[in-house]
Amino acid sequence: MKKIVVLGSGMVGRIMAIDLSGDFEVTAADVSPDNLAKLEGTAVKPLRADLSSPKALRGIVEAADLVIGAVPGSMGFATLREVIAAGRDIVDISFFPEDALALDDAARAAGVTAVVDCGVAPGMSNMILGYHAARMTVHRFACYVGGLPFRREFPFEYKAPFSPADVIEEYIRPARYIENGHLVVKPALSDVENMDFDEIGTLEAFNSDGLRSLLTTVKVPNMIEKTLRYPGHVRYILALRDSGFFDTDEIDARGRRVRPLDATSAVLFKHWQLHEEDDEFTVMRIVVEGVERGLRKAVQYDLFDRRDRTTGFSSMARTTGFPATAAARLVLSGRLTRKGICPPEFLGADPAAFRAVMDELAARNVIYRVKDIA
Amino acid sequence: MKKIVVLGSGMVGRIMAIDLSGDFEVTAADVSPDNLAKLEGTAVKPLRADLSSPKALRGIVEAADLVIGAVPGSMGFATLREVIAAGRDIVDISFFPEDALALDDAARAAGVTAVVDCGVAPGMSNMILGYHAARMTVHRFACYVGGLPFRREFPFEYKAPFSPADVIEEYIRPARYIENGHLVVKPALSDVENMDFDEIGTLEAFNSDGLRSLLTTVKVPNMIEKTLRYPGHVRYILALRDSGFFDTDEIDARGRRVRPLDATSAVLFKHWQLHEEDDEFTVMRIVVEGVERGLRKAVQYDLFDRRDRTTGFSSMARTTGFPATAAARLVLSGRLTRKGICPPEFLGADPAAFRAVMDELAARNVIYRVKDIA
Repeated sequence: MKKIVVLGSGMVGRIMAIDLSGDFEVTAADVSPDNLAKLEGTAVKPLRADLSSPKALRGIVEAADLVIGAVPGSMGFATLREVIAAGRDIVDISFFPEDALALDDAARAAGVTAVVDCGVAPGMSNMILGYHAARMTVHRFACYVGGLPFRREFPFEYKAPFSPADVIEEYIRPARYIENGHLVVKPALSDVENMDFDEIGTLEAFNSDGLRSLLTTVKVPNMIEKTLRYPGHVRYILALRDSGFFDTDEIDARGRRVRPLDATSAVLFKHWQLHEEDDEFTVMRIVVEGVERGLRKAVQYDLFDRRDRTTGFSSMARTTGFPATAAARLVLSGRLTRKGICPPEFLGADPAAFRAVMDELAARNVIYRVKDIA
Repeated sequence: MKKIVVLGSGMVGRIMAIDLSGDFEVTAADVSPDNLAKLEGTAVKPLRADLSSPKALRGIVEAADLVIGAVPGSMGFATLREVIAAGRDIVDISFFPEDALALDDAARAAGVTAVVDCGVAPGMSNMILGYHAARMTVHRFACYVGGLPFRREFPFEYKAPFSPADVIEEYIRPARYIENGHLVVKPALSDVENMDFDEIGTLEAFNSDGLRSLLTTVKVPNMIEKTLRYPGHVRYILALRDSGFFDTDEIDARGRRVRPLDATSAVLFKHWQLHEEDDEFTVMRIVVEGVERGLRKAVQYDLFDRRDRTTGFSSMARTTGFPATAAARLVLSGRLTRKGICPPEFLGADPAAFRAVMDELAARNVIYRVKDIA
């Protein structure tokens, strides 16, 4: 039986480990005993390890046929580099800030397949665009995505499994888009618009920096990505931002030197923290427009996924983790052999691979509804 | 010529000193050379002094026939106590948290007239109620008051000459009202309602703790005080409050221990700071209802005062300072002789004194429009 090691057994890592443990021998490595304790009663072998140590990491991944990367974003790039250096194939969802394609030469040289950004967005959004871009001339790509709690609590009506500092980082970083073939940069949180969704009603969408590898790997003249929140969220975030609560220059708070951003993150932590038992959902809409075999074509994908009450798996874990486990199955079964850094748009360009991923998702009740809108 | 010493030469103290310097020999004492420098070219004698030193304070006030108290609220009570101990009459606008009436016995024993809370609200609001309560049975008293900038800047549309910590304190302290003869306590920022004003349009009013001495000095079965802000202000304040930004338990902000309230005050400081050149206004509406000589009576006072572009005096200084200088003139001319702590409702109960104050205000173009509304 082939061996998989999952690096990081957090909210998503654990679900990926469990998902793969039916068909593979799976070890989940994490520094936190609490995280590992949650694997009790599953077929996954827990391994306590400090993954920030290159030496420990090397020893762990060398025992595996394939590695799943699910470490915190701040550790993601270094971890990927080590796994490539160890010559192991990897499917990664760590969402690190660095450009994975900088490791492309190293991965090719090592004969490694490294599927990166293989979650929901980035991840499925890339795969869907990759699929269509390979068979039509795409004029416009738009992705709207968000993960939200069902319980709407004043004022932000938002919770996330990551730290407020990471969320705020997304609210600060300017958004890079492609407009008429040119890279344009827009302020974060700009262009707020309301959008209606069948299952949840009206949400608001705003600019965020989520296109990542798509900015360079595909030639589509118009591409945007927007984040979805409950209406009103952005006004309260702007109120904080414009009042200086995200500033990074130290201020004097009655004799204590502190960065406003750090104080704000600490204050928001307990209000924004998504707990495993919180009922939440993932919503994503993708629109691909262009010309296919001489005819105008526009296709829309809609995902609305909620926490699975049977397994207890959060929607965030399901929608992010299952694309990665599907990709892992493709790699291990020899159906995905491309060497080097492989963002999901490359995977999607292969229709058999794309359909295999969509089938694996559907088998886990993660359903992308597809319809032609022109 | 009688001698007056003004303790505190800040935004209001300085204007009071200048106002009185036409008729009296006025000294303004302040610890800040910057504040004193602004007196250059006036008839006021500047005196640099640390008013937190009882000894220094005693020496300064003993040279005066009357003292004006305009120190920061945190120093107000101690300053008043010292002035009474020195046997000097005082008119005070320091707005300290302690109960001035606790010094009533000391003031009577010293033969001192101490007019306290003698600004706009508290101040004119008390005086107006005192005037009517002495000549009718008052069933209901309501006071709506706010000072605002003309320039409305997202998100709070607010500026004040005091520190954000003092403003936030007013947004935290529960509001004490009288309802059907009983003391009731309501959360700060509650009962938000929109109100229209001829000069500025719609403002929002919310509960705040401003009745102070009126809670015990007059027998009116229904009394409320509300603060006025631009519509929407309260929602943004509630967003901060409910998210924990006003909390006073220390948190860990990336290794720095800080109280959220202190960090919030420091962040808001530069956004909320009213500068002397900022164009601002004061708006107040007072409603007194009841029965006078067997007939139902309801009277409404409306104040809308703006910064005086000729003198440069802010509306805040004009509306707060001129009631105090008018009261000072009454004391010095022997028209107000009551000994002890004298909140403005006692002054207002004397119709001659009340009219004298209103005339002094009108002479300075601070106009209370009065109309019967029933």
